[in-house]
Amino acid sequence: MKQQEKLVKEITSMDVDFAKWYTDVVRKAELADYSSVRGCMVVQPYGCAIWENIRDELDRRFKALGHENVMMPMFIPESLLQVEKDHVEGFAPEVAWVTHGGSEKLTERLCVRPTSETLFCEHYKNIIHSYRDLPKLYNQWCSVVRWEKTTRPFLRTMEFWWQEGHTMHATAEEAIAETEQMLNVYADFVENCLAMPVVKGQKTEKEKFAGAEATYTIEALMHDGKALQSGTSHYFGDGFARAFGIQFTDRENKLQYPHQTSWGMSTRIIGGMIMTHGDDNGLVVPPAVAPIQAVIIPIAAHKGGVLEVAARLRDELAAAGVRVKVDDSDNSPGWKFAEYEMKGVPLRIEIGPRDIESGNCVVVARDNREKTVVALAELAGRMPALLQGVHDRLFQRALENRERRTFTALTLDELIDIANRESGYIKAMWCGDEACELALKDRAGVTSRCMPFEQEHLSDTCVVCGKKAKSMVYWGKAY
Amino acid sequence: MKQQEKLVKEITSMDVDFAKWYTDVVRKAELADYSSVRGCMVVQPYGCAIWENIRDELDRRFKALGHENVMMPMFIPESLLQVEKDHVEGFAPEVAWVTHGGSEKLTERLCVRPTSETLFCEHYKNIIHSYRDLPKLYNQWCSVVRWEKTTRPFLRTMEFWWQEGHTMHATAEEAIAETEQMLNVYADFVENCLAMPVVKGQKTEKEKFAGAEATYTIEALMHDGKALQSGTSHYFGDGFARAFGIQFTDRENKLQYPHQTSWGMSTRIIGGMIMTHGDDNGLVVPPAVAPIQAVIIPIAAHKGGVLEVAARLRDELAAAGVRVKVDDSDNSPGWKFAEYEMKGVPLRIEIGPRDIESGNCVVVARDNREKTVVALAELAGRMPALLQGVHDRLFQRALENRERRTFTALTLDELIDIANRESGYIKAMWCGDEACELALKDRAGVTSRCMPFEQEHLSDTCVVCGKKAKSMVYWGKAY
Repeated sequence: MKQQEKLVKEITSMDVDFAKWYTDVVRKAELADYSSVRGCMVVQPYGCAIWENIRDELDRRFKALGHENVMMPMFIPESLLQVEKDHVEGFAPEVAWVTHGGSEKLTERLCVRPTSETLFCEHYKNIIHSYRDLPKLYNQWCSVVRWEKTTRPFLRTMEFWWQEGHTMHATAEEAIAETEQMLNVYADFVENCLAMPVVKGQKTEKEKFAGAEATYTIEALMHDGKALQSGTSHYFGDGFARAFGIQFTDRENKLQYPHQTSWGMSTRIIGGMIMTHGDDNGLVVPPAVAPIQAVIIPIAAHKGGVLEVAARLRDELAAAGVRVKVDDSDNSPGWKFAEYEMKGVPLRIEIGPRDIESGNCVVVARDNREKTVVALAELAGRMPALLQGVHDRLFQRALENRERRTFTALTLDELIDIANRESGYIKAMWCGDEACELALKDRAGVTSRCMPFEQEHLSDTCVVCGKKAKSMVYWGKAY
Repeated sequence: MKQQEKLVKEITSMDVDFAKWYTDVVRKAELADYSSVRGCMVVQPYGCAIWENIRDELDRRFKALGHENVMMPMFIPESLLQVEKDHVEGFAPEVAWVTHGGSEKLTERLCVRPTSETLFCEHYKNIIHSYRDLPKLYNQWCSVVRWEKTTRPFLRTMEFWWQEGHTMHATAEEAIAETEQMLNVYADFVENCLAMPVVKGQKTEKEKFAGAEATYTIEALMHDGKALQSGTSHYFGDGFARAFGIQFTDRENKLQYPHQTSWGMSTRIIGGMIMTHGDDNGLVVPPAVAPIQAVIIPIAAHKGGVLEVAARLRDELAAAGVRVKVDDSDNSPGWKFAEYEMKGVPLRIEIGPRDIESGNCVVVARDNREKTVVALAELAGRMPALLQGVHDRLFQRALENRERRTFTALTLDELIDIANRESGYIKAMWCGDEACELALKDRAGVTSRCMPFEQEHLSDTCVVCGKKAKSMVYWGKAY
């Protein structure tokens, strides 16, 4: 097992340096590589396969709810970005500007899209005329660019991949219902496919999306106690529609402005998955999005029959819908064990001459390394439960981490004290004033993560100013 | 049928103005819309669904051959683009340049990728060290930008979507085999999924990809007799590897340069599909990539039972794997007929009270409008053959168009005469000199489409200069 030790030793321990552990895992599990373009990453085959699984799961959910995919230009003319005032203020400082095409200087600069509300609005103006044209439920899969100062693979990159849904509705009620529905789609996906428990809530005015009336969010807590905004859904009212002059005639033949939403989830969520489930042996990938759900490792593969049985098991599992691989390379079993632990493959199936003799194999779960002896004839049938077991334990472990790291503060001193000693969510009452939000950032180093939909009445007064509290807020440090 | 006539009349006839017919179909079938970004298009849901089907078909073929997807940055630093001399000469004049990030001026300009050889090479330099690391068989799905002067939806847009495969191999033989294999994948896909017959061949030196040693191509002939380069596969030798310093140690522990390929197919192929199969009633989509393969139109839908039977048929067909839709909207049957003809849905299924009484429905094929009476109980079972029938007739019709439009010229006068009178391929012998290629462009307005793999010996001498001929070439006008 010397090779295994060597491979494992190359990762920094989480407890020693969580940030270093993170980048070690990204590199050693071959998720992403750096590129010579500052702040941009190369997503390698294993990382790309995880993203494709995430994409397929989400895309199926979107389409089942009537959404359709489109592909918009990657450029936005400067004048188009400027149509909605709050929006341009929020995004103009962080966009990449194209000024030349070939050798000619452009008469108008184009920005590389940081988000596509303006492009969708321009198109919607062309195609929405009557109530019969509504709702429009569009989505696109693409990459966007934001000129970030400090970057880390997946968590914050200048270019990142995402989906952005953009919908138009006849009424405010319908649009708000869509905003809530899509937040629920995200929460369902993140909890049931990525095994990450989330808090659903609303962003404060300060933290909401540029140009939105309301931003809803799902927030997940990482292993180190920092929060990650994992998916957002925005309600725009008719603000963009008015700015862009998008109108439709309703059933009474009156001109109306449609109401709008947008919602997005990005490759950032892969960073969240790594920081929620990973350990000192590397990545742990939840079964629903794992490129390889089970790897079969032949033991003493040179002995008669082992490779044949391994191949037969692979075919049986594949036929049962499991994403399975046999590693029959020359590397030692110990090396392979370490390699697939590093890559976070949920189940390892060991099969050797003695196993074949007894008609069994050994299944080892990635998360707790527990070994289960399974009859060869029963393996395919037991896979769903074995995979579900990994998922359930991952979710439970993440939930326990969150519960252990969720605190309550009734006074400012208490909040500052917790923020100094602990890393996690701090629940505290808030009056709704941005001044108090800024004070908490200044004095405790925390920001508002969200006003959870599930409110608790901790006290009557704001933890900062002592005025009447409007809501309970989750505060914390965030990625 | 007044509405139908009205809808149909809105398309220009192909014979009156083929270019106008093309853009009419793109707009009326709701494939794509224009945007305020010059030369960029909005791919609408129906066009996007066709592209997703193309993507899924190709992606499955690529993965079955061991290729893996990655996601590369969209930017290339100017110095990186310049590493390979022929490559930068070919592409630098037509790239979009990013010069500012937010408010800061960049120290080095970034171009928006026109193609990604340089980015792949940079990454391959990081990850290829030993013969054990080879081959690398990578692909990515993305959009690229080329600063084109004149643009048309799908056929030539500043931004277009494509896949670009980039592979590295230990030997020239392996790389050449990959180049040929991927051209065959393209030919198989285009003929068997898009029903477009292709000619496989090699590009001349003048027409090959910037930086490649050899470019292979599949060429398709459009309804109007102009050719469309439909997919290309390039062999690079070790030119980029030497320029980028990519080396590996072989089995004898010697340093070697790997050999490289790239290959691509783009949203252009949708333009080819439109111009191969469309007619004066609109689009015709081959069944393999049709978002809707069959549309069920209830006749006299208010009468008892019609909608129920339509819904039952839909469920039966969907269960049999057919992409099917019922249109139970308020529009008249005539309107619906015209609408789905415009959208090129391969099969229309009409079901009314009298059909139900007799236990039948009427299936109408989009391509020839032939009606087939089919027993309701047999419909699902007969769908594969009915869809295959549409495919086969589309392929046959396109093949006949190509054969009718393929000419042979033994002298320059003959070639010029054919080029003046006809639109199509002209087969003629060529000495291999670029001067003769330019002369044909100048005097007959044709370019070399390819040197087909299936060579014919038409004569011993070049049709232009009379020197010894090296190969038979397909000449023609092209999109």
